[in-house]
Amino acid sequence: MRDQTSMSRQEIEEGTVLAPKFDQNGLIPAVAQHAETGEILMLAYMNAEALEKTLETRKAHYWSRSRQSLWLKGETSGQTQEVTDLLIDCDQDTVVLKVLPQGDGGCCHVGYRTCFFRTVQGEELTKVQKPL
Amino acid sequence: MRDQTSMSRQEIEEGTVLAPKFDQNGLIPAVAQHAETGEILMLAYMNAEALEKTLETRKAHYWSRSRQSLWLKGETSGQTQEVTDLLIDCDQDTVVLKVLPQGDGGCCHVGYRTCFFRTVQGEELTKVQKPL
Repeated sequence: MRDQTSMSRQEIEEGTVLAPKFDQNGLIPAVAQHAETGEILMLAYMNAEALEKTLETRKAHYWSRSRQSLWLKGETSGQTQEVTDLLIDCDQDTVVLKVLPQGDGGCCHVGYRTCFFRTVQGEELTKVQKPL
Repeated sequence: MRDQTSMSRQEIEEGTVLAPKFDQNGLIPAVAQHAETGEILMLAYMNAEALEKTLETRKAHYWSRSRQSLWLKGETSGQTQEVTDLLIDCDQDTVVLKVLPQGDGGCCHVGYRTCFFRTVQGEELTKVQKPL
Protein backbone atom coordinates (compact mmCIF):
# COMPACT_ATOMS: atom_id res chain seq x y z
CA MET A 1 0.00 0.00 0.00
CA ARG A 2 1.32 3.39 -0.91
CA ASP A 3 1.32 6.54 1.16
CA GLN A 4 -1.00 9.21 -0.27
CA THR A 5 1.33 12.04 0.72
CA SER A 6 3.71 11.19 -2.16
CA MET A 7 0.92 11.04 -4.75
CA SER A 8 -0.93 13.57 -6.89
CA ARG A 9 -4.64 14.04 -6.40
CA GLN A 10 -5.28 12.48 -9.80
CA GLU A 11 -3.19 9.43 -8.96
CA ILE A 12 -5.19 8.98 -5.76
CA GLU A 13 -8.59 9.59 -7.28
CA GLU A 14 -8.30 7.94 -10.66
CA GLY A 15 -5.14 5.87 -10.52
CA THR A 16 -4.53 2.16 -10.21
CA VAL A 17 -2.49 2.02 -7.00
CA LEU A 18 -3.98 1.18 -3.62
CA ALA A 19 -3.23 4.05 -1.23
CA PRO A 20 -5.83 4.04 1.52
CA LYS A 21 -6.15 7.15 3.63
CA PHE A 22 -6.38 6.08 7.25
CA ASP A 23 -7.70 8.61 9.75
CA GLN A 24 -5.89 9.98 12.80
CA ASN A 25 -6.57 6.67 14.57
CA GLY A 26 -5.18 4.64 11.68
CA LEU A 27 -8.65 3.51 10.60
CA ILE A 28 -10.77 3.51 7.46
CA PRO A 29 -14.53 2.88 7.45
CA ALA A 30 -15.66 -0.31 5.73
CA VAL A 31 -19.24 -0.87 4.61
CA ALA A 32 -20.31 -4.51 4.27
CA GLN A 33 -22.97 -5.13 1.65
CA HIS A 34 -24.64 -8.46 0.91
CA ALA A 35 -23.19 -9.62 -2.41
CA GLU A 36 -26.49 -11.06 -3.59
CA THR A 37 -29.28 -8.95 -2.10
CA GLY A 38 -27.44 -5.60 -2.05
CA GLU A 39 -28.57 -5.03 1.53
CA ILE A 40 -26.18 -2.94 3.61
CA LEU A 41 -25.25 -5.10 6.58
CA MET A 42 -22.96 -3.04 8.81
CA LEU A 43 -20.27 -0.41 8.98
CA ALA A 44 -17.07 -1.17 10.84
CA TYR A 45 -13.48 0.07 10.75
CA MET A 46 -10.26 -1.42 9.43
CA ASN A 47 -6.66 -0.64 10.20
CA ALA A 48 -3.96 -1.52 7.66
CA GLU A 49 -3.57 -5.02 9.07
CA ALA A 50 -7.32 -5.74 8.90
CA LEU A 51 -7.42 -4.56 5.30
CA GLU A 52 -4.41 -6.68 4.37
CA LYS A 53 -5.81 -9.78 6.07
CA THR A 54 -9.17 -9.25 4.36
CA LEU A 55 -7.54 -8.99 0.93
CA GLU A 56 -5.36 -12.01 1.66
CA THR A 57 -7.92 -14.38 3.17
CA ARG A 58 -11.13 -13.06 1.53
CA LYS A 59 -12.73 -13.17 4.98
CA ALA A 60 -13.73 -9.81 6.46
CA HIS A 61 -11.42 -8.62 9.21
CA TYR A 62 -12.04 -5.39 11.10
CA TRP A 63 -10.47 -3.43 13.91
CA SER A 64 -12.60 -3.57 17.03
CA ARG A 65 -12.54 -0.09 18.51
CA SER A 66 -14.12 -1.29 21.77
CA ARG A 67 -11.70 -4.19 22.25
CA GLN A 68 -8.78 -2.43 20.50
CA SER A 69 -7.85 -5.57 18.61
CA LEU A 70 -8.00 -7.22 15.22
CA TRP A 71 -11.37 -8.84 14.74
CA LEU A 72 -12.15 -11.69 12.38
CA LYS A 73 -15.86 -11.09 11.94
CA GLY A 74 -17.76 -14.22 12.93
CA GLU A 75 -14.90 -15.79 14.83
CA THR A 76 -17.20 -16.49 17.78
CA SER A 77 -20.68 -16.08 16.23
CA GLY A 78 -19.99 -18.10 13.09
CA GLN A 79 -21.26 -15.12 11.07
CA THR A 80 -18.11 -14.87 8.99
CA GLN A 81 -18.26 -12.81 5.81
CA GLU A 82 -16.81 -14.26 2.61
CA VAL A 83 -15.61 -11.31 0.57
CA THR A 84 -16.50 -11.55 -3.10
CA ASP A 85 -15.37 -8.04 -4.00
CA LEU A 86 -13.70 -5.06 -2.34
CA LEU A 87 -14.20 -1.56 -3.72
CA ILE A 88 -12.54 1.72 -2.77
CA ASP A 89 -13.82 5.24 -3.31
CA CYS A 90 -12.38 8.19 -5.19
CA ASP A 91 -10.36 9.66 -2.32
CA GLN A 92 -9.51 6.19 -1.01
CA ASP A 93 -10.85 6.86 2.47
CA THR A 94 -13.70 4.32 2.50
CA VAL A 95 -14.03 0.73 1.34
CA VAL A 96 -17.07 -1.35 0.42
CA LEU A 97 -16.98 -5.11 0.93
CA LYS A 98 -19.38 -7.29 -0.99
CA VAL A 99 -19.87 -10.28 1.24
CA LEU A 100 -21.69 -13.55 1.62
CA PRO A 101 -22.61 -13.94 5.30
CA GLN A 102 -22.02 -17.45 6.63
CA GLY A 103 -23.43 -19.28 9.65
CA ASP A 104 -27.05 -18.31 10.24
CA GLY A 105 -26.76 -15.51 7.67
CA GLY A 106 -26.96 -12.81 10.32
CA CYS A 107 -24.67 -9.92 11.00
CA CYS A 108 -25.88 -7.90 13.97
CA HIS A 109 -25.19 -8.83 17.59
CA VAL A 110 -28.76 -7.79 18.50
CA GLY A 111 -30.04 -10.66 16.33
CA TYR A 112 -30.98 -9.17 13.01
CA ARG A 113 -29.91 -9.88 9.44
CA THR A 114 -28.38 -6.41 9.24
CA CYS A 115 -27.47 -3.74 11.78
CA PHE A 116 -29.77 -1.30 9.94
CA PHE A 117 -33.05 -2.80 11.12
CA ARG A 118 -34.66 0.50 12.15
CA THR A 119 -35.96 3.33 10.02
CA VAL A 120 -35.98 6.93 11.26
CA GLN A 121 -39.01 9.17 10.99
CA GLY A 122 -38.66 12.43 12.86
CA GLU A 123 -37.37 11.42 16.28
CA GLU A 124 -38.85 7.95 16.16
CA LEU A 125 -37.35 4.63 15.16
CA THR A 126 -39.40 1.77 13.73
CA LYS A 127 -38.17 -1.76 13.24
CA VAL A 128 -38.39 -2.79 9.60
CA GLN A 129 -36.94 -6.29 10.02
CA LYS A 130 -37.77 -9.29 12.13
CA PRO A 131 -35.03 -10.89 14.24
CA LEU A 132 -33.50 -14.06 12.73
CA MET B 1 -32.64 13.76 19.43
CA ARG B 2 -31.74 12.25 22.74
CA ASP B 3 -28.35 11.99 24.35
CA GLN B 4 -27.13 8.38 24.58
CA THR B 5 -25.45 8.95 27.94
CA SER B 6 -28.82 8.95 29.73
CA MET B 7 -29.99 5.74 28.04
CA SER B 8 -29.55 2.02 28.66
CA ARG B 9 -27.76 -0.08 26.09
CA GLN B 10 -31.03 -1.82 25.26
CA GLU B 11 -32.83 1.48 24.74
CA ILE B 12 -30.09 2.56 22.34
CA GLU B 13 -29.83 -0.73 20.46
CA GLU B 14 -33.42 -1.87 20.29
CA GLY B 15 -35.50 1.11 21.32
CA THR B 16 -37.64 3.54 19.37
CA VAL B 17 -35.94 6.84 20.19
CA LEU B 18 -33.44 8.54 17.89
CA ALA B 19 -30.19 9.04 19.82
CA PRO B 20 -27.34 9.26 17.34
CA LYS B 21 -23.82 8.86 18.67
CA PHE B 22 -21.68 11.56 17.13
CA ASP B 23 -17.90 11.09 17.25
CA GLN B 24 -15.38 13.40 18.90
CA ASN B 25 -15.78 15.80 15.96
CA GLY B 26 -19.57 15.80 16.26
CA LEU B 27 -19.98 13.65 13.16
CA ILE B 28 -21.68 10.41 12.17
CA PRO B 29 -20.91 8.51 8.95
CA ALA B 30 -23.74 8.36 6.41
CA VAL B 31 -23.81 5.82 3.59
CA ALA B 32 -25.87 6.81 0.56
CA GLN B 33 -27.39 3.90 -1.34
CA HIS B 34 -29.37 4.12 -4.56
CA ALA B 35 -32.99 3.46 -3.59
CA GLU B 36 -33.71 1.50 -6.76
CA THR B 37 -30.50 -0.27 -7.78
CA GLY B 38 -29.06 -0.83 -4.30
CA GLU B 39 -25.70 0.49 -5.45
CA ILE B 40 -23.64 2.16 -2.73
CA LEU B 41 -22.97 5.67 -3.98
CA MET B 42 -20.81 7.39 -1.36
CA LEU B 43 -19.94 7.75 2.27
CA ALA B 44 -19.98 11.19 3.83
CA TYR B 45 -20.41 12.63 7.31
CA MET B 46 -23.26 14.43 9.05
CA ASN B 47 -23.33 16.63 12.08
CA ALA B 48 -26.57 17.06 14.03
CA GLU B 49 -27.69 19.94 11.83
CA ALA B 50 -27.10 18.00 8.60
CA LEU B 51 -29.07 15.04 9.97
CA GLU B 52 -31.93 17.30 11.06
CA LYS B 53 -32.05 19.11 7.71
CA THR B 54 -32.00 15.79 5.87
CA LEU B 55 -34.90 14.44 7.91
CA GLU B 56 -36.81 17.70 7.49
CA THR B 57 -36.28 18.35 3.78
CA ARG B 58 -35.75 14.76 2.53
CA LYS B 59 -32.75 16.06 0.59
CA ALA B 60 -29.35 14.72 1.68
CA HIS B 61 -27.30 17.23 3.66
CA TYR B 62 -23.79 16.43 4.87
CA TRP B 63 -21.02 18.17 6.76
CA SER B 64 -18.11 18.95 4.48
CA ARG B 65 -14.96 18.18 6.44
CA SER B 66 -12.75 19.93 3.86
CA ARG B 67 -14.85 23.09 3.75
CA GLN B 68 -16.01 22.81 7.39
CA SER B 69 -19.55 23.75 6.45
CA LEU B 70 -23.02 22.34 5.95
CA TRP B 71 -23.30 20.87 2.48
CA LEU B 72 -26.51 20.36 0.56
CA LYS B 73 -25.35 17.59 -1.77
CA GLY B 74 -25.88 18.68 -5.37
CA GLU B 75 -26.24 22.37 -4.60
CA THR B 76 -23.74 23.25 -7.31
CA SER B 77 -23.59 20.02 -9.37
CA GLY B 78 -27.35 19.43 -9.53
CA GLN B 79 -26.72 15.90 -8.20
CA THR B 80 -29.09 16.31 -5.27
CA GLN B 81 -30.22 13.16 -3.48
CA GLU B 82 -33.92 12.71 -2.71
CA VAL B 83 -34.08 10.64 0.47
CA THR B 84 -36.70 7.91 0.33
CA ASP B 85 -35.65 6.24 3.59
CA LEU B 86 -33.18 6.78 6.41
CA LEU B 87 -32.00 3.84 8.53
CA ILE B 88 -29.87 3.77 11.66
CA ASP B 89 -27.79 0.90 13.02
CA CYS B 90 -27.90 -0.93 16.34
CA ASP B 91 -25.52 1.33 18.25
CA GLN B 92 -26.84 4.42 16.44
CA ASP B 93 -23.43 5.50 15.19
CA THR B 94 -24.03 5.14 11.42
CA VAL B 95 -26.91 6.02 9.12
CA VAL B 96 -27.89 4.69 5.72
CA LEU B 97 -29.75 6.95 3.31
CA LYS B 98 -31.72 5.42 0.48
CA VAL B 99 -31.66 8.06 -2.20
CA LEU B 100 -32.75 8.88 -5.72
CA PRO B 101 -29.93 10.86 -7.37
CA GLN B 102 -31.18 13.82 -9.39
CA GLY B 103 -29.55 15.82 -12.20
CA ASP B 104 -27.44 13.58 -14.41
CA GLY B 105 -27.80 10.73 -11.91
CA GLY B 106 -24.17 10.92 -10.87
CA CYS B 107 -22.67 11.25 -7.45
CA CYS B 108 -18.88 11.40 -7.64
CA HIS B 109 -16.93 14.57 -8.41
CA VAL B 110 -14.55 12.52 -10.59
CA GLY B 111 -17.46 11.85 -12.97
CA TYR B 112 -18.80 8.43 -12.08
CA ARG B 113 -22.21 7.15 -11.04
CA THR B 114 -20.80 6.18 -7.66
CA CYS B 115 -17.60 6.97 -5.77
CA PHE B 116 -16.84 3.23 -5.61
CA PHE B 117 -15.82 2.80 -9.23
CA ARG B 118 -12.62 0.85 -8.54
CA THR B 119 -12.16 -2.68 -7.30
CA VAL B 120 -9.12 -3.71 -5.26
CA GLN B 121 -7.06 -6.80 -6.08
CA GLY B 122 -3.85 -7.03 -4.12
CA GLU B 123 -2.28 -3.59 -4.43
CA GLU B 124 -3.96 -2.80 -7.72
CA LEU B 125 -7.13 -0.89 -8.51
CA THR B 126 -9.23 -1.58 -11.58
CA LYS B 127 -12.05 0.63 -12.80
CA VAL B 128 -15.33 -1.29 -12.92
CA GLN B 129 -17.50 1.58 -14.13
CA LYS B 130 -17.43 3.93 -17.06
CA PRO B 131 -17.65 7.68 -16.43
CA LEU B 132 -21.10 9.21 -17.01
